[in-house]
Amino acid sequence: MTTAAHETGARRVLVTGATGFIGRHALTPLRNLGFEVHATARSVPEDSPAEIHWHAVDLFAPDAVDALLAIIRPTHLLHFAWYAEHGKFWESPYNLDWLGASVTLLRAFAESGGKRFVGAGTCAEYDWTEAGSAAAYRFDEDRTPLRPTTLYGAAKASTFLTGSAYARNTGLSFAWGRVFHLFGPGEAPARIVPALARAHALKERLECGPETQTRDFLPAFAVGEAFAHLCASEAQGPVNIGSGRERTLGELSTAIASLAGTQGDIRFGVLPGSGPERLVPLVRRLTAETGWIPPVDPDAGLREMLPKILF
Amino acid sequence: MTTAAHETGARRVLVTGATGFIGRHALTPLRNLGFEVHATARSVPEDSPAEIHWHAVDLFAPDAVDALLAIIRPTHLLHFAWYAEHGKFWESPYNLDWLGASVTLLRAFAESGGKRFVGAGTCAEYDWTEAGSAAAYRFDEDRTPLRPTTLYGAAKASTFLTGSAYARNTGLSFAWGRVFHLFGPGEAPARIVPALARAHALKERLECGPETQTRDFLPAFAVGEAFAHLCASEAQGPVNIGSGRERTLGELSTAIASLAGTQGDIRFGVLPGSGPERLVPLVRRLTAETGWIPPVDPDAGLREMLPKILF
Repeated sequence: MTTAAHETGARRVLVTGATGFIGRHALTPLRNLGFEVHATARSVPEDSPAEIHWHAVDLFAPDAVDALLAIIRPTHLLHFAWYAEHGKFWESPYNLDWLGASVTLLRAFAESGGKRFVGAGTCAEYDWTEAGSAAAYRFDEDRTPLRPTTLYGAAKASTFLTGSAYARNTGLSFAWGRVFHLFGPGEAPARIVPALARAHALKERLECGPETQTRDFLPAFAVGEAFAHLCASEAQGPVNIGSGRERTLGELSTAIASLAGTQGDIRFGVLPGSGPERLVPLVRRLTAETGWIPPVDPDAGLREMLPKILF
Repeated sequence: MTTAAHETGARRVLVTGATGFIGRHALTPLRNLGFEVHATARSVPEDSPAEIHWHAVDLFAPDAVDALLAIIRPTHLLHFAWYAEHGKFWESPYNLDWLGASVTLLRAFAESGGKRFVGAGTCAEYDWTEAGSAAAYRFDEDRTPLRPTTLYGAAKASTFLTGSAYARNTGLSFAWGRVFHLFGPGEAPARIVPALARAHALKERLECGPETQTRDFLPAFAVGEAFAHLCASEAQGPVNIGSGRERTLGELSTAIASLAGTQGDIRFGVLPGSGPERLVPLVRRLTAETGWIPPVDPDAGLREMLPKILF
């Protein structure tokens, strides 16, 4: 955390999707970075962090968005809002609606005098077939082609491509955080980290994909914090969001079992793998250009999450 | 031309942008391929080919589009409409509007029971830096990454990415013709073919970029015909639109001078080049999967166009 941002003058950020899986974790870090924080949601939450200004707005109503921008006049826009229901978001036609609403929001923000837009992208924008091409392959913002194979990945890549080109023309500062793997409170029980946590804690059986697949898992609070730092920085273009630590799903399972103190019956290799053998980002840009530092203890997030999953 | 399409039952195509630079040349070929042809324009032209059903519609009015689709119930949609004003279309914010309208149109078409969508893309969707990587490089639908550097290219690539993913989910047949270089009646005088034609015919001086740059130029009527065949075919995904013939701008100039019978004062190398040294497509998919055959005489289009440019 730094207080240097205070010295740069009044910075007002509008956060969309601020009650979401990542968004909720960006609000306090943004405050700590010196922002006046305005947050949108369909309904205002009861357990908001202190000093957050909430606004109920329908992002599919351009007139309401224009009115909100005119009132707040945000200098920064951190856009998380998107359709994200587990198991359905990959191929839902709602992705078309969110592409349209996101581009419309970006344009309204620029026309209202906004200075910097930061959006939430995904590793599913990249060409995953590239990952097999080198032993130490990491997804690279500058070199890995975009070749999404899902509607979600396509709509996010489209928002990035069109949004970044529009921003360049209008002088808007633009960054796009590509989220890799994460876990946290409120996560669907079927996802890998909650499923492993439950299986180990309750000594249950769990069928999994290959234990050799590697991922870079961050706790959701660290992802929110990374986005807050990205927003406060001057970094431009796509920025991978990750810790830089790679581990196999087998190692992840072992770490969870160690924290739980009990051991489930984990059957790796029973299910087909989801995604490439290695799906881990280069995070040079994130760490060099935003000042964000990954959690020192790679298991701190798991330790914090375990009780929230189980009770 | 073939009449086999008649045997496959009633095929009704709705053509958007049907008065445009390419669209106007697709209508008669579609008739000849057995389609019942419906065409949209902001206003109905006076010199329409025979047996074309015209509809004045605002493609930014979703209710009007839905009503039109409900009346026509097209099996095929050939979507040319886009903002295309010379010199302005590359970076105009209208590209955002057309991305939104195109995705909305595609979805409305699918939901109305449409079977096949064909859109007009651009070589500006591709990564142009790839063109320098091999001596015989041609842009390849399957292998060349998408990396647009203009807002126009980004919005077209976005329509392709999101549209093709949505189509796959809904069982809609989807093809995307990527237009390379073309010339034809109604073209802006500052573009290379009209400028060379005028300079040679009037023995005027013209300053140009490098004469070694290679392109694959098609007359607009051939591009319209290629799109009609693409629409009538079953080809899926991106399909480059080109003749397969590559020539330098110097060779193009020589061909035009030969047709004009007079010689202008063409100063190659005075202006910087626009685009990569070689910007030519692989056209295997177009020629193998649609039955379209490029013009036998590479200069027939130039010969036809010369009088139209000058008088």
